[in-house]
Amino acid sequence: MRIPFEQLRQEFNRVLLSLSFPPDKADRCSYIFASNSRDGVYSHGLNRFPVFVKQVKAGQVDPQAIPNAIDQNGALEIWDGHLGPGMFNATVSMNRAVELSKTNGIGCVTIRNTNHWMRGGTYGWQAADAGCIGICFTNAIAGMPAWGGIEPVLGNNPLVIAVPRKEGHVVLDMAMSQFSYGKMQEYELKKQQLPFPGGYDAQGNITHDPSAVRATKRALPAGYWKGSGLAMILDIVLVALSGGRSTEMITRSGAEYGITQCFISLYRPDLHEALIESIIQYSQNSTPVTPGRPVAYPGQNTLATRMESEKYGVLIDETMYATLLEM
Amino acid sequence: MRIPFEQLRQEFNRVLLSLSFPPDKADRCSYIFASNSRDGVYSHGLNRFPVFVKQVKAGQVDPQAIPNAIDQNGALEIWDGHLGPGMFNATVSMNRAVELSKTNGIGCVTIRNTNHWMRGGTYGWQAADAGCIGICFTNAIAGMPAWGGIEPVLGNNPLVIAVPRKEGHVVLDMAMSQFSYGKMQEYELKKQQLPFPGGYDAQGNITHDPSAVRATKRALPAGYWKGSGLAMILDIVLVALSGGRSTEMITRSGAEYGITQCFISLYRPDLHEALIESIIQYSQNSTPVTPGRPVAYPGQNTLATRMESEKYGVLIDETMYATLLEM
Repeated sequence: MRIPFEQLRQEFNRVLLSLSFPPDKADRCSYIFASNSRDGVYSHGLNRFPVFVKQVKAGQVDPQAIPNAIDQNGALEIWDGHLGPGMFNATVSMNRAVELSKTNGIGCVTIRNTNHWMRGGTYGWQAADAGCIGICFTNAIAGMPAWGGIEPVLGNNPLVIAVPRKEGHVVLDMAMSQFSYGKMQEYELKKQQLPFPGGYDAQGNITHDPSAVRATKRALPAGYWKGSGLAMILDIVLVALSGGRSTEMITRSGAEYGITQCFISLYRPDLHEALIESIIQYSQNSTPVTPGRPVAYPGQNTLATRMESEKYGVLIDETMYATLLEM
Repeated sequence: MRIPFEQLRQEFNRVLLSLSFPPDKADRCSYIFASNSRDGVYSHGLNRFPVFVKQVKAGQVDPQAIPNAIDQNGALEIWDGHLGPGMFNATVSMNRAVELSKTNGIGCVTIRNTNHWMRGGTYGWQAADAGCIGICFTNAIAGMPAWGGIEPVLGNNPLVIAVPRKEGHVVLDMAMSQFSYGKMQEYELKKQQLPFPGGYDAQGNITHDPSAVRATKRALPAGYWKGSGLAMILDIVLVALSGGRSTEMITRSGAEYGITQCFISLYRPDLHEALIESIIQYSQNSTPVTPGRPVAYPGQNTLATRMESEKYGVLIDETMYATLLEM
């Protein structure tokens, strides 16, 4: 089923207001949830909303919290999110990083005691909309082992890099596990194998079987030791700067809240746009592996889905939407 | 064979001086080549030196060039390397980024018309030695296809992230291909298969066979579409900021010179060191997959090799060393 974006957004907004969200926060958070579904990131749009509402009711997300700077060193600021809604805190943080970069060329906000930002790409698009190159990353609850170890001790710690572009921003949004558990569940429900190895089975062998990986909780880091190292050092950078909770502390607390994030913005009034186009063209001139499916730049498929949603409405799961209407 | 670090460094220095390197550049470059061998990165130490010398003789590396800032916007500076030695230019650039961060909290130098920095990790260690969190990345000649395409259009574009730590810095140094061609050649010479898939064979199947990948030039990006997207966007960020040469332009020129790099430094006088230790401990408390081989943090093995080299001498290939002595 497809429904208009604004209709979906208003339903989110109604529920958030009923949960005592101040109007500005309800507005921003409902917009982000609706945008995530609109852009095809269903796992962090409508389908995630009930989990978010549960976290609000459990007191892990405080709708009243106002994030504030607790320390500043030039264009590097440390903020505290006071457990406010992650999407709102992340918006404020990237906005501040953009502001800092407009006067300093580069700016950084690291925020502790914040919450899940849903789709990281959102804040990359935000920076790019402001004409800036945005880089942001977050930690998360442990979901995959470090390379060489068995128990999950690393978050999937997504990294986002965005570059503004008139014809559609270039936005990379990558988690450090090869497949998210949500994605593996989708394959499992369809009784399909993963297209590439996704983790380890009970015998310790690398496997394409999503059920086996979900059972062992030994998801494979993207690029094996590479994704493992990147996930670990992003967590280290986050807490070293901010004193916030690490993946270890989040995991020991038993729930994914009170996490730590970093937002960097770079600003130059005159990016070399022709060179950006040339790089995209160069890769898209490749002979496609699958005829008729040319190489896509990061963010291209998101934009295509967005345009489809704007034309035909946002694709939604009817059961999830019924749940939303009853909230 | 093992020889003292200083002996190796002096041989490099002698050759560089004979190539009209000014003493300060010869000093820095010889130190970096010797350090790379000392730290176990043989591919970018002694074994790479003859290639570097050839590039100097071909005029692709200009020993006399002095890098300079061509544009400044606060703590974001654009430099031109004028085709000087990459290791020297990278040292100057990271040094400047560190300086900027000491007064602004964060600083960035993007440099165009520079040359290969050999081991990217070098400049991560440099930032960390100065008490800063360092992030740097470079583009390179095309060596792997973009995800979904057949011809190589992406560089392996290494990304380095370093965090200072008294007991040994945490330094991630990752290229975007799963295995470098140098590493694949090592397996080929030993007549071994790669431990994980490294690329595509002539039939378009993913393979562990290093010879097959070296023949097709279809190396696999780390994490498949993830490493592909990351390599592409790093190239975009580099040239969008600096107007420097992209992987496309480097590749079309037929030789890997005149490349583009970015150096970011973050400085806070009081990093949360206990939290860094805690993250490392948490991962190292994992049950090892291979008994007796605990999880390593990024940079740990480098440091272990360095300490071994300092105690017993730097491990060198005798043939390569004989070549050096004859230069």
